[in-house]
Amino acid sequence: MALINENYLKLKAGYLFPEIGRRTRAFAQAHPEAKIIRLGIGDVVKALPKPVVRAMKAAAEELAHDETFRGYPPEQGYDFLLQAVVDNEYRPRGVEILPEEVFISDSSKCDSANIQEVFGLDNVIALTDPVYPVYCDSNVIAGRTGLPDEQGRYAGMVYLPCTAENGFVPDLPREHVDIIYLCSPNNPTGAVMTRQALEQWVEFARRKRAIILFDAAYESYITDPEIPHSIYEIPGAREVAIELRSYSKTAGFTGTRCAFTVVPKELVAYTRSGDAASVHPIWYRRQTTKFNGVAYVVQRGAEASYSPQGKKAVGKLIKYYLANAKYMRQQLGACGYTVYGGVNAPYLWLRTPEGKTSWEFFDLLLNQANVVGTPGAGFGAAGEGYLRLSAFNHREAIEEAMARIARL
Amino acid sequence: MALINENYLKLKAGYLFPEIGRRTRAFAQAHPEAKIIRLGIGDVVKALPKPVVRAMKAAAEELAHDETFRGYPPEQGYDFLLQAVVDNEYRPRGVEILPEEVFISDSSKCDSANIQEVFGLDNVIALTDPVYPVYCDSNVIAGRTGLPDEQGRYAGMVYLPCTAENGFVPDLPREHVDIIYLCSPNNPTGAVMTRQALEQWVEFARRKRAIILFDAAYESYITDPEIPHSIYEIPGAREVAIELRSYSKTAGFTGTRCAFTVVPKELVAYTRSGDAASVHPIWYRRQTTKFNGVAYVVQRGAEASYSPQGKKAVGKLIKYYLANAKYMRQQLGACGYTVYGGVNAPYLWLRTPEGKTSWEFFDLLLNQANVVGTPGAGFGAAGEGYLRLSAFNHREAIEEAMARIARL
Repeated sequence: MALINENYLKLKAGYLFPEIGRRTRAFAQAHPEAKIIRLGIGDVVKALPKPVVRAMKAAAEELAHDETFRGYPPEQGYDFLLQAVVDNEYRPRGVEILPEEVFISDSSKCDSANIQEVFGLDNVIALTDPVYPVYCDSNVIAGRTGLPDEQGRYAGMVYLPCTAENGFVPDLPREHVDIIYLCSPNNPTGAVMTRQALEQWVEFARRKRAIILFDAAYESYITDPEIPHSIYEIPGAREVAIELRSYSKTAGFTGTRCAFTVVPKELVAYTRSGDAASVHPIWYRRQTTKFNGVAYVVQRGAEASYSPQGKKAVGKLIKYYLANAKYMRQQLGACGYTVYGGVNAPYLWLRTPEGKTSWEFFDLLLNQANVVGTPGAGFGAAGEGYLRLSAFNHREAIEEAMARIARL
Repeated sequence: MALINENYLKLKAGYLFPEIGRRTRAFAQAHPEAKIIRLGIGDVVKALPKPVVRAMKAAAEELAHDETFRGYPPEQGYDFLLQAVVDNEYRPRGVEILPEEVFISDSSKCDSANIQEVFGLDNVIALTDPVYPVYCDSNVIAGRTGLPDEQGRYAGMVYLPCTAENGFVPDLPREHVDIIYLCSPNNPTGAVMTRQALEQWVEFARRKRAIILFDAAYESYITDPEIPHSIYEIPGAREVAIELRSYSKTAGFTGTRCAFTVVPKELVAYTRSGDAASVHPIWYRRQTTKFNGVAYVVQRGAEASYSPQGKKAVGKLIKYYLANAKYMRQQLGACGYTVYGGVNAPYLWLRTPEGKTSWEFFDLLLNQANVVGTPGAGFGAAGEGYLRLSAFNHREAIEEAMARIARL
């Protein structure tokens, strides 16, 4: 008799974004005349940079001829892209990463869901609260937790509240933890971790022999020159941290799918008997066994985002969305809302008014302003009373959304 | 202290194909003048069909403009491709599959590695021997087995030998099993399962409430009109079988990455207390939580493989590789080799001569004929004494390889 993985039955309702999609579609069907503005899911809207498109077409043309056809890509990524990552993402910041420490993948979501797999089931997982749901759900599915309580917090997981009081940056845990997910610039709050905060965490991880899974998917949105873009800017981080990056929010790759993960060779975890085990060969084994690499055309597109013209275009995209975020902060502030984030990140973290819950405010915005946000409670118990608004939209849509909210 | 997943330490050496790559590279470095012919890894060599390339370029051009830009794809796949799968892969064979039962992914390798995740850790897994290593290794990593014995067989796994005696088609197991991986046309042996054999397996699974994971990545290579292309051609299979398909070996997508998996709504597994749990919503939850969909350009390319011109081109590719297989069978037979497969499949399963082991024969072919095969032992204990040769190469390379082997 085939047995189901009962851990799936522990998961609350649907994954957050499909649930938002469901409510939005239901509203749209009931009100076909409504012009809905989507500031919910963090999905970019601007065209791919021209050099990226040109590179993808040229790569497709290569595949059209036997002489230049390419079959299975290397599971870890083509050398041309691994080298481009090292040369463009790390070396300019004084960070030495080897090409073979970089793993190209189709998605940061996949990487952040899969990375827990290389670690034992007995690890205690620490999550910030609120948090990107994938970190949590992938660990629930793997069986590292018990059932959720009324607030949706799973037994066995350690939650690190991020609130207005601590500037949405988690304090070091007092409990025992083995694996810590950190995200800066933060999804959903838009907060960033200072160099000092990161140093504290790296020191903590080294002392406890814990591992930090550092999601830096939004690092390009950092405007403050004092804020580190990579955790490897912190001395000693190579021994304790894995870093995740993505092309989704830089070159606009949400529909094109490319990301990468860095696993330094010094990083170790331990067997139950206390022997050190290098993590790099384990992740390599995972990727060569369970993954088959990213499409050639996509890797050529990602490479082109590092060309001089590509970089210029990417810089323009980021500036565009950051200008949206700035405008949103101003307008929402003028309406009397308390707003966080939106300075070093494309997300704004909005206090809901008059003691409304996140989902109540979500429904109110959807019904009365036809604007879709993301309920903070969907990101965790400490997200209750907040709503995330994304700056990823066309300027006219952002202006219209802000005007509608002002009229509420 | 972060703990490693010690199941990884149970795995034998490297994943098979990287190990072949390593030996081949070492030989090439020592003999830079050698013209190596690769019949090892089953990787296609012919150009993508022109309609596919045109569709990919047109899709890239859409992404170059704000008005036609596409962001995150639906995790399950675009409706246009889901519908095309139903209309082209299933309906013409009289099989009714709903679009929402199809899940587009980037890879059959990923799907066949990930699918075990929706099932509990207590299931007894049955594998054919020899077998595609991903089915095995993904279950070892998940923790469903003990250590391997000297033959590389993992404790707790049930192996179903496929030998010349049973025509390389597995007999029903006498032991208790819950999940069974079947692959027809078979990788690596090239054997196919008849309708009668499939009926037996479906009946067995229904009786035992077991689930069949049916890998049909090579169904397009079936030449015998009596052999089913889909397990859903067998009545009752919808309740007990998941089917995996791929564009890799049809439209030449090994470097372009697209595949799909069918999970019928009737399929159930069970909780430990014996309640039926529908598998479809669990796999849907898995894919929406841990996967983010396939690139738009790639899905448009896959769709174009179903256009009249696309189908014609795909048919031509398959014919080309099948003609290679036929030629290889003839030539190797004339040399006195015992050869299986290569009629309904792009793989030939060659008995090694004079009691040579698989890896000895692999090294001999590499060193003396500069031809790369895949050692049968790499696919399991029952593969010892065999070598897999792939028909995926240019005709001239195939002819040259056969001539060199004849001269040995």
